[in-house]
Amino acid sequence: MIRAGVVGASGLAGGELIRLIAQHPELELTFLGGSSHVGRRPAELHPGLRLDLGLTVRPVTAEIADQVDVVFLATPAPVSAELAALLADRVPAVVDLSGAFRIRTPELHDRWYPKVERRADLADRFVYGVPELVGDQLADAALISLPGCYATAITLGLAPLTLGLGLDLRTVVVDGKSGSSGGGLQLRTPDLHPLRNGAIAPYSPTGHRHAAEVGDFLARAKQGTIGSLTMSAYGVSHVRGLLTSSYVFTDDAVDERELWRAYVRFYKGHRFVRVRRHDETLLPVPDPQAVLGSNYCDVTVLHDVDGGRVVVLAALDNLVKGAAGQAVQAANIRFGLPEETGLTMQPVMPA
Amino acid sequence: MIRAGVVGASGLAGGELIRLIAQHPELELTFLGGSSHVGRRPAELHPGLRLDLGLTVRPVTAEIADQVDVVFLATPAPVSAELAALLADRVPAVVDLSGAFRIRTPELHDRWYPKVERRADLADRFVYGVPELVGDQLADAALISLPGCYATAITLGLAPLTLGLGLDLRTVVVDGKSGSSGGGLQLRTPDLHPLRNGAIAPYSPTGHRHAAEVGDFLARAKQGTIGSLTMSAYGVSHVRGLLTSSYVFTDDAVDERELWRAYVRFYKGHRFVRVRRHDETLLPVPDPQAVLGSNYCDVTVLHDVDGGRVVVLAALDNLVKGAAGQAVQAANIRFGLPEETGLTMQPVMPA
Amino acid sequence: MIRAGVVGASGLAGGELIRLIAQHPELELTFLGGSSHVGRRPAELHPGLRLDLGLTVRPVTAEIADQVDVVFLATPAPVSAELAALLADRVPAVVDLSGAFRIRTPELHDRWYPKVERRADLADRFVYGVPELVGDQLADAALISLPGCYATAITLGLAPLTLGLGLDLRTVVVDGKSGSSGGGLQLRTPDLHPLRNGAIAPYSPTGHRHAAEVGDFLARAKQGTIGSLTMSAYGVSHVRGLLTSSYVFTDDAVDERELWRAYVRFYKGHRFVRVRRHDETLLPVPDPQAVLGSNYCDVTVLHDVDGGRVVVLAALDNLVKGAAGQAVQAANIRFGLPEETGLTMQPVMPA
Amino acid sequence: MIRAGVVGASGLAGGELIRLIAQHPELELTFLGGSSHVGRRPAELHPGLRLDLGLTVRPVTAEIADQVDVVFLATPAPVSAELAALLADRVPAVVDLSGAFRIRTPELHDRWYPKVERRADLADRFVYGVPELVGDQLADAALISLPGCYATAITLGLAPLTLGLGLDLRTVVVDGKSGSSGGGLQLRTPDLHPLRNGAIAPYSPTGHRHAAEVGDFLARAKQGTIGSLTMSAYGVSHVRGLLTSSYVFTDDAVDERELWRAYVRFYKGHRFVRVRRHDETLLPVPDPQAVLGSNYCDVTVLHDVDGGRVVVLAALDNLVKGAAGQAVQAANIRFGLPEETGLTMQPVMPA
Repeated sequence: MIRAGVVGASGLAGGELIRLIAQHPELELTFLGGSSHVGRRPAELHPGLRLDLGLTVRPVTAEIADQVDVVFLATPAPVSAELAALLADRVPAVVDLSGAFRIRTPELHDRWYPKVERRADLADRFVYGVPELVGDQLADAALISLPGCYATAITLGLAPLTLGLGLDLRTVVVDGKSGSSGGGLQLRTPDLHPLRNGAIAPYSPTGHRHAAEVGDFLARAKQGTIGSLTMSAYGVSHVRGLLTSSYVFTDDAVDERELWRAYVRFYKGHRFVRVRRHDETLLPVPDPQAVLGSNYCDVTVLHDVDGGRVVVLAALDNLVKGAAGQAVQAANIRFGLPEETGLTMQPVMPA
Repeated sequence: MIRAGVVGASGLAGGELIRLIAQHPELELTFLGGSSHVGRRPAELHPGLRLDLGLTVRPVTAEIADQVDVVFLATPAPVSAELAALLADRVPAVVDLSGAFRIRTPELHDRWYPKVERRADLADRFVYGVPELVGDQLADAALISLPGCYATAITLGLAPLTLGLGLDLRTVVVDGKSGSSGGGLQLRTPDLHPLRNGAIAPYSPTGHRHAAEVGDFLARAKQGTIGSLTMSAYGVSHVRGLLTSSYVFTDDAVDERELWRAYVRFYKGHRFVRVRRHDETLLPVPDPQAVLGSNYCDVTVLHDVDGGRVVVLAALDNLVKGAAGQAVQAANIRFGLPEETGLTMQPVMPA
Repeated sequence: MIRAGVVGASGLAGGELIRLIAQHPELELTFLGGSSHVGRRPAELHPGLRLDLGLTVRPVTAEIADQVDVVFLATPAPVSAELAALLADRVPAVVDLSGAFRIRTPELHDRWYPKVERRADLADRFVYGVPELVGDQLADAALISLPGCYATAITLGLAPLTLGLGLDLRTVVVDGKSGSSGGGLQLRTPDLHPLRNGAIAPYSPTGHRHAAEVGDFLARAKQGTIGSLTMSAYGVSHVRGLLTSSYVFTDDAVDERELWRAYVRFYKGHRFVRVRRHDETLLPVPDPQAVLGSNYCDVTVLHDVDGGRVVVLAALDNLVKGAAGQAVQAANIRFGLPEETGLTMQPVMPA
Repeated sequence: MIRAGVVGASGLAGGELIRLIAQHPELELTFLGGSSHVGRRPAELHPGLRLDLGLTVRPVTAEIADQVDVVFLATPAPVSAELAALLADRVPAVVDLSGAFRIRTPELHDRWYPKVERRADLADRFVYGVPELVGDQLADAALISLPGCYATAITLGLAPLTLGLGLDLRTVVVDGKSGSSGGGLQLRTPDLHPLRNGAIAPYSPTGHRHAAEVGDFLARAKQGTIGSLTMSAYGVSHVRGLLTSSYVFTDDAVDERELWRAYVRFYKGHRFVRVRRHDETLLPVPDPQAVLGSNYCDVTVLHDVDGGRVVVLAALDNLVKGAAGQAVQAANIRFGLPEETGLTMQPVMPA
């Protein structure tokens, strides 16, 4: 068994990591870390999880290196930055779910994470990326930085166009819609149920750091370019799951059938990305409710002939493929397990 | 008292018309029309409305002309087309809430309403438009065609840029998000609660006829142009209210403060359009929950400096400002009443 | 115009009072009080309310007596207790929405409101009760204590059995179900949207102080007795509105048709109580969504012949008939206005 | 591998069976039956399930006996009655999820299932019951009738009082609250999202056949009696999961601590029943969101000392422990597998 520690155990992503590790045949939870709720058992923090693990939340120190083979950091970016420095050469694998090490271009990092001091030596050692796109690099990575939930969906949606077909995307306009779990459990008045239910909250109307992340990553690729990528993000009235819409304007010629084939080809062998036709089921897809609780990302590509654009839709569960599930997937690759180990649960729908 | 008839009385917009007329000091409900639920009282169809009106649903015939001064058609477009022909010269005012007479350009009409035969003579007599933009024309209109819910929001959002500032908008990408009441009460499996709740349903990902309507209307203006206007629409997990996001790319120079002033100036004297700063309250606005049950349309304009675009957000209650409320507003103007008569209810929030 | 002050202006009931007063033809808002958010305008606190009132939140002092004819206290019970003492003989009418003066029996008060010191002299001067049941007493009341939201529904449901028919109710088992707005806007983790949405939260499974309030009130009546009245309360997954189910076991003979007639008779002339048959509309009623935003309380009485019990259901909007609307209704009576003045808005459904 | 067939494959319980069988290490789906949607693949009917099973929906005939070891009937009761007669002696195990064979007392059956002709010979061969209570009998049952979703929760909640402690329960008042998935996917206007969202719908206020089922079952036990058991059921505003509240009046002496111990003792060794303290976590439990997607039933027992009653709360996912999960659990026992095989998924919370 691979011994796993979860830091940030009281948050939503932390709870989801505990859920997934509890269901994983090769991972064993051996450490729960956090600075708040010290001494608490998981069941006290996560009402769904009544597991008899014999673990309580404890502060993170260098000594935990003896107890774990991999540590998942489900912590705010500034905390992750500190813990990564502490654990980097002590623990075989550190998987960071925060934004601390996502953006490689220094100016972009400083722009979007001004409170997270960039440590160049450490940052350069992190492998960043969606497992489907950087799988090989994860196989021997000691330090892994996972994309954000929106960034995962946008990147999986656009990659077949740029990395696959080598298209030059003149203008990409991204509209992201997320449930309330994307915001975590911080005590903020707008997140109280009476105010959040029924809302379409334009919380990031003129930009989002996940867009910077996507641009930074795709710009490093050898083929396919993105001229302008803008993003706006909205909170809508459900809890779990997000959808990203990428409205793509390109001067290259496109054809819906060929786009479809390119997507299927690009993701062949990657079971967690489901390329779906918009009308293949009784509901229009992708729709985040059709991936709820699972590690799937559903992707659909459409050609708006009249509008002269390509519409790419991607849906995922922000706590699974957008966070904890993708973290476990990366760890699986890191430790030589099939990437789907412990992640074969089907979507819970309707919910 | 002005005698009012409502046709399509069993639907959501019909129910909302009954609600608003019941609260209106100058309108009196004298006729309820429909082809289904004949013989039923409003309370049987609309559980909230237990009004002792002494009316039941009846088929529409030419004879109703004796009973009404104004007829509101909350009927599907093909039905509205027929009833308009029947009632046009018999009733002083016909207000149609459907799409039958919205698009003036014949090819566009046929493209988006292929099942509604275009009757050119009749169509040309209809005054179409958001009351704030065509108020004068409504004052002596016998036939009024109201914009769709999305079209109202998009048009109110863009008009200060084109009609007001005379900007040339090279590319406008519209993303619309609506609650389930926008789809009415037809019996369709995807609209059942277990499947609709928690959804982000991309039901019109590559185009929407309301975009054609907006383009058709704004293109007739003397100043300001729109190069390309594309739209995608999504159903999200609440019932009432919609938000439209218009991502605008223009080569004209813009400045957020001046945009703001232009919007305030443009809507001066129009109480139902509230120009709002994105951060003026504890929740980001506009948000449809902040206009619920009211006839307001909240509009915010933002300059995304990095992205080189203008972001225009507009929120309204699709059953009020997007349908029944706007219909009453138009009728008020038509009959010489202050436009806000009977429409001064404040938003019911939270709900 | 009657000058009205609202204290607790930043809370949900405070916001609802501002909404209703803004729509009221005879009330004018002249004071906004509160200890938090001092200096803020209503629109900053209540995103739906963008009213140009020229008022900001200010601390309450004895001097406000010059500015108001009536003060509504939408404050926590301990604050209400203090403010009532301050304002009692200075302001013509004080309407308290809290529990500070609801329970007259001293031991019961101390049991359920241990943090609210009982001031016997002041408490005895308060008129407590649902306006429909104590209307006459309100006409010259200087101090008014309004029932809680649950208590209003339960009392209106049971009163025709006890006060009307004089039945002796051996056992009454009450089950109350409420939306999240019943809990206000305090920052508590369980009230965050991700945890509250989708919940059936048994927050008061073995008792609720509103039951004590109902018992205390009905026990003072001349006819009809209640042997045992127990209550449990649950938070369910919507925002506004509650339903109370009272399962009544009595040794007196009952008949559904006669019960129905008794209810209709009992509430004759009281427009805010709608006695409804369970199947009179396409949805089973009462259902709080059918009274949303209005001052109605819908009541249904059923005879469970097999079970040997009477089932009484009552639904209301906890922020209107359960709080602000009932407060305005009481003030209307107090100042000699028709009780429905400013309260004739119809339910906003669907929402 | 045990070959499994699912009939009623297009419904919610049918979809859930497909989901669980797809995750089950010992069950293999070999037949999909149904009278509607013939020829469709599961992914077309259930948007979450994009499984390459190579199966399409087909009509059920006697020939399917060659293809299956167990058939799950997720069909309406009248259909189940017919199919059970067809398959009874042809297939090794038939597991019926409908109410066709639940009630043993003939008069009660006819009262609550008037459209399902009772076939005495067949009915007597069915083993009915919650697996935790009738486990041994399932081990060699050819015909299994599963309790309803509400009945499962109520029975698991009351059994420790009657079967365990042998108490005589004078009066039991049950209040059941369920999400919309309990009603399936039939096309009915009240189940459309605009009308169902935000509702507290009293759809069965004076009785429910699941109460008859519970009474019929518990009355056959050797110890513990139930004098009167009444039930009312409500639809609330979420999709998946139900809570039952049983308000129990008994003349026997009770003590909360001893009740607690009795419950823990009674369910020792039964992993799917979690006996929980009301305040053991940050949310009050049981709450159906804390079991979502899992086969758990959470049970809490409380002593309302003032009210002289015992309050028993039970929460489960109506599609899992209330239907498909319990079906698989029963089949596991039937085929000699550990009862938790394929059912160890943890709750997906928040959702």
